[in-house]
Amino acid sequence: MSDTGESLVTALGEFTLIDRIVERLDAAAAHDLLVPTGDDAAAWRTHDGVAVATIDALVEGTHWRTDTMAWGDVGWRAVTANVSDLAAMGAEPQYLLIATTLGPDLTIDDLDGLIDGIAESCRFHGVRVAGGDVVRGPVTALSIAAYGKIEGGTADAPLLRRSRARAGDFVAVSGTPGASGAGLALIEAGRAAEVGIEMLLLAHRRPVARVALGRAAAASGLRCGMDISDGLLQDLGHIAEASEVGIEIAAASLPLPAAAVDALGVQAALDLALGGGEDFELILVGPRDALVRLDTPEVPVTLIGRVIADHPGEVIVWGPDGEAYEPPRRGWDQTRDSGERRS
Amino acid sequence: MSDTGESLVTALGEFTLIDRIVERLDAAAAHDLLVPTGDDAAAWRTHDGVAVATIDALVEGTHWRTDTMAWGDVGWRAVTANVSDLAAMGAEPQYLLIATTLGPDLTIDDLDGLIDGIAESCRFHGVRVAGGDVVRGPVTALSIAAYGKIEGGTADAPLLRRSRARAGDFVAVSGTPGASGAGLALIEAGRAAEVGIEMLLLAHRRPVARVALGRAAAASGLRCGMDISDGLLQDLGHIAEASEVGIEIAAASLPLPAAAVDALGVQAALDLALGGGEDFELILVGPRDALVRLDTPEVPVTLIGRVIADHPGEVIVWGPDGEAYEPPRRGWDQTRDSGERRS
Repeated sequence: MSDTGESLVTALGEFTLIDRIVERLDAAAAHDLLVPTGDDAAAWRTHDGVAVATIDALVEGTHWRTDTMAWGDVGWRAVTANVSDLAAMGAEPQYLLIATTLGPDLTIDDLDGLIDGIAESCRFHGVRVAGGDVVRGPVTALSIAAYGKIEGGTADAPLLRRSRARAGDFVAVSGTPGASGAGLALIEAGRAAEVGIEMLLLAHRRPVARVALGRAAAASGLRCGMDISDGLLQDLGHIAEASEVGIEIAAASLPLPAAAVDALGVQAALDLALGGGEDFELILVGPRDALVRLDTPEVPVTLIGRVIADHPGEVIVWGPDGEAYEPPRRGWDQTRDSGERRS
Repeated sequence: MSDTGESLVTALGEFTLIDRIVERLDAAAAHDLLVPTGDDAAAWRTHDGVAVATIDALVEGTHWRTDTMAWGDVGWRAVTANVSDLAAMGAEPQYLLIATTLGPDLTIDDLDGLIDGIAESCRFHGVRVAGGDVVRGPVTALSIAAYGKIEGGTADAPLLRRSRARAGDFVAVSGTPGASGAGLALIEAGRAAEVGIEMLLLAHRRPVARVALGRAAAASGLRCGMDISDGLLQDLGHIAEASEVGIEIAAASLPLPAAAVDALGVQAALDLALGGGEDFELILVGPRDALVRLDTPEVPVTLIGRVIADHPGEVIVWGPDGEAYEPPRRGWDQTRDSGERRS
């Protein structure tokens, strides 16, 4: 193993791998896109606006376990995750292409459940399946590509990017981050039947993409945002790096899910809000007034911090005691961590 | 196993599975697309033309084996297969999204080779990678979504469909089908080092999508075509079914690869031309003169048969003796057959 070439790729982290691939693709990578690789989705100009596209791969055992969710939940979540990448750009999702790899143990009932979950999430999110592929393999897996559009705006296209945070901006988050991670933690602790945690289970098994909020944010003039898929702190870090700014947030301002505080305690709920993934809530960055105007009773938008010129690329969490707080986990790297994506 | 629901999906064939999925998706499937599911790619109208998109999943062990091709070949072929689906619609390929699942045994050298092959095929075919995803899994796999466009034509969009064959049309094929299957057969027989079979090995490891031909065909007014991915006879069958016509071809008119005839004999070359997959040549259907005008020294287009009103959904091969000929294999169903896709 002295030669790098013989090393396994599992020795490299996700973001190192992506950098390596993009560099090696060289001219075969579309560096001149309106939004090149590295954001939630790629975007390129069309005759009447912007086309936005993204792809995700999900593999049984890595991205879901059938002992914590039903096949319908797997299908629902896969669609949500892709639609969320378009929501995070402020785009209108239109079509999905779905490639399904059928593992040897998959039953027809399993497949029917998977397809039903996909169909339900499509109807809920207003997207439709335009095509797909079905193949066999040693493990069940799904790859979904999503296409959407943003109309108008040839000069300054109304889309949300990771690289547009500026010192002085405020930082907001939708919903109650950590709910999905709390749901999974309770399922794994054998507490799924408890009363009062239904919204946490739903957040894990039937998460919702914030399509209307993303579009409203872009239409209102905001230009910076992304969705929380790897964990709030890690995803804020992506914005800090892409924008070359620092971000500071106040732990006390985080909108923790009340059910998670009740069931797990405030410290665990806080850590899940900071480091849990797959909430699919939106981080939005911009002027305070623009953010506050997006807050509604249905989808709360809460101010949690500010963008600063100091500490570029870093995210600082101020704890209730006035000291910087470091949670046990900042987020999720799916090429290195083992087991299901979790808090 | 008395209950259908407990049956494994491996008991169902590819096309039965696809029908089941599309039916179950119900309103979540985009039935009103310009070209709905069931053709080489989906197509929908845009402001200035037609958007065309497709997705393929490729899994190690099912779609390639590392003992018959290098990682660079795997990457090259994966891009070709997707670009070919757009070529088969007469579209201009633009962007790819690539989801890579990294198996536990993949080395960094392997990954670099894979990416190099992807990049080379992208440059050759004039497409670029706009984005992707990298995840871990128990087996290495690739899913590629390709996106392209057809400009102009709002009333009768200039694209090639499977459902547009009409009785009286002629049937043509590009290149020399069976070359890829012959290349694989020779590799498996341990004959890869023989002189004179280089084009067969290239056809298997570095196949080319007929992008310029597909676009020229659609621009010339042709409206029916597809690419040969499952095998000539099976793919002609898809046209016959979608168009509700019969197709008859003459075995003697098939442009067999001379190297395959030399190395394997005329009978094996014929059977590979009829039943071998992954040639990525185009089947084109329409008026005789329009087909003949597409023939060039670089990419020959050869008339091989006719469309008839009788025997809807069927493909008849007339042998040299004037009898209908049934080859040992009509094509490939990748959800049922085992091992690599082969003749």
